[in-house]
Amino acid sequence: MSAFAEALARAWEQNDSLLCVGLDPEIERFPPGIAAAPSPIFQFNKAIIDATRDLVCAYKPQFAHYAACEAEDQLERTIEYVHSTCPGILVILDGKRGDVGNTAERYAVEAFERYGADAVTVNPYLGGDSLEPFLKRADKGVVILCRTSNPGARDLQDLEVGTRRLYHVVAELAATRWNGHGNCALVVGATYPRELAEVRRIVGGMPLLLPGVGAQGADVAQAVENGQTSDGTGLIVSSSRGILYGAARAAGTDFAAAARAAAEALRAQINSSRRGRRSS
Amino acid sequence: MSAFAEALARAWEQNDSLLCVGLDPEIERFPPGIAAAPSPIFQFNKAIIDATRDLVCAYKPQFAHYAACEAEDQLERTIEYVHSTCPGILVILDGKRGDVGNTAERYAVEAFERYGADAVTVNPYLGGDSLEPFLKRADKGVVILCRTSNPGARDLQDLEVGTRRLYHVVAELAATRWNGHGNCALVVGATYPRELAEVRRIVGGMPLLLPGVGAQGADVAQAVENGQTSDGTGLIVSSSRGILYGAARAAGTDFAAAARAAAEALRAQINSSRRGRRSS
Repeated sequence: MSAFAEALARAWEQNDSLLCVGLDPEIERFPPGIAAAPSPIFQFNKAIIDATRDLVCAYKPQFAHYAACEAEDQLERTIEYVHSTCPGILVILDGKRGDVGNTAERYAVEAFERYGADAVTVNPYLGGDSLEPFLKRADKGVVILCRTSNPGARDLQDLEVGTRRLYHVVAELAATRWNGHGNCALVVGATYPRELAEVRRIVGGMPLLLPGVGAQGADVAQAVENGQTSDGTGLIVSSSRGILYGAARAAGTDFAAAARAAAEALRAQINSSRRGRRSS
Repeated sequence: MSAFAEALARAWEQNDSLLCVGLDPEIERFPPGIAAAPSPIFQFNKAIIDATRDLVCAYKPQFAHYAACEAEDQLERTIEYVHSTCPGILVILDGKRGDVGNTAERYAVEAFERYGADAVTVNPYLGGDSLEPFLKRADKGVVILCRTSNPGARDLQDLEVGTRRLYHVVAELAATRWNGHGNCALVVGATYPRELAEVRRIVGGMPLLLPGVGAQGADVAQAVENGQTSDGTGLIVSSSRGILYGAARAAGTDFAAAARAAAEALRAQINSSRRGRRSS
């Protein structure tokens, strides 16, 4: 078991939670008081983190939401804040990186040294050598896109490759050639429960990151049932907009309490479908 | 013809050149005088741009080389500098972005608004809806990964999908469904001339960005012969390390003159293989 896999197993246990809160700041949806403050993205994230840190296993900041508004410094501060105030909780930097070897090395430096992320999402289209700079860091998680949650996922990922689909091939590569350090995980959209069950069969106990819960409308119970491992773990169930903004506009300045309520409800919903336990 | 395609056609003509210089700064390879200066990346790029602007059709800054050392500001300055001092020359931001719709919108803002790039490289693994926020900008180029220059490209891109390979499918999608605004281009590694000829047959006149020249060792003449269109254009032949650093270490502070010499030689080599002309 890699240091990353061990850290993830501890994080699941720490808050009895498979929930990951996606930190996708959209300033136009912030409460007015925060939107007008200095470093509004960091302040918003800090309030969300303060309100949810005992309910999650991980936070997942999505890179584009920072890059589009020149807020790399606030991304750095956000990740530092998680590390300093939420010991044991992981940060997955969602950048979906993918480039040839010498450039991928730079992306690994960006994710793991500059930002200090515990894991990063990557795109498999360029093949194994493009992933190697990430994979060789056994202390870090490498979360490879497999079957994504968007409708267009069908265009390439569902193509038939012999008797399989392309995403099956990616899952097989991840479970075999790419997992020499035991630090691979896969992205599988919660919006496609059948595909999720197929990937689980291929990869054994490998962690799966499930976007698509909340705003994208996945059936949480079915996703957890189809995706979990035999011991009722194996999943990082990610929700961003459903937690950050679902109730925020209605609740005015009490957006953090609304986010906490949404996170509590989703954690309970996830836990009620996990093997070996009753509704929590 | 899209505004982007027209701008690219003019850029090819302006300097009689299909050459693109990749701006992949590696501070450890900079001449000592520049490495120790303030904003060393911008100063290095500025010197390279000043030395080569009459020899190229485009510059291609690679994002990771800036992100790894917190140099987004120097990336912004570099692109501004090209636009202000090299009218008609295009900037292709090489970020290989790829994410679901609402996030891809943010990446499009990053590339086209924040950085002011004329084109951006993107990854097709997530499918058409992930590309749409880029594709809908008819004034901007969308350079889609097809058959990359690295050895690992085989892992996924060469998989057999019926009677075709996966990269053939990407080329077909780019030439049909994704090119409604006429602003698609494809990345095809110059290191694989046979695959390059196949892609050219599939996509007609679509521009192809060819990495792999120089440090990666592609045969330039064969790549140009196999990739060009019937009028001897259609290619953006990109070299980074071969121009930036090939002679720089030997030449000491005269790295810019060495880069110019390398760019001149490569442009001439490319032009000597173009249809309808002799060696220039």
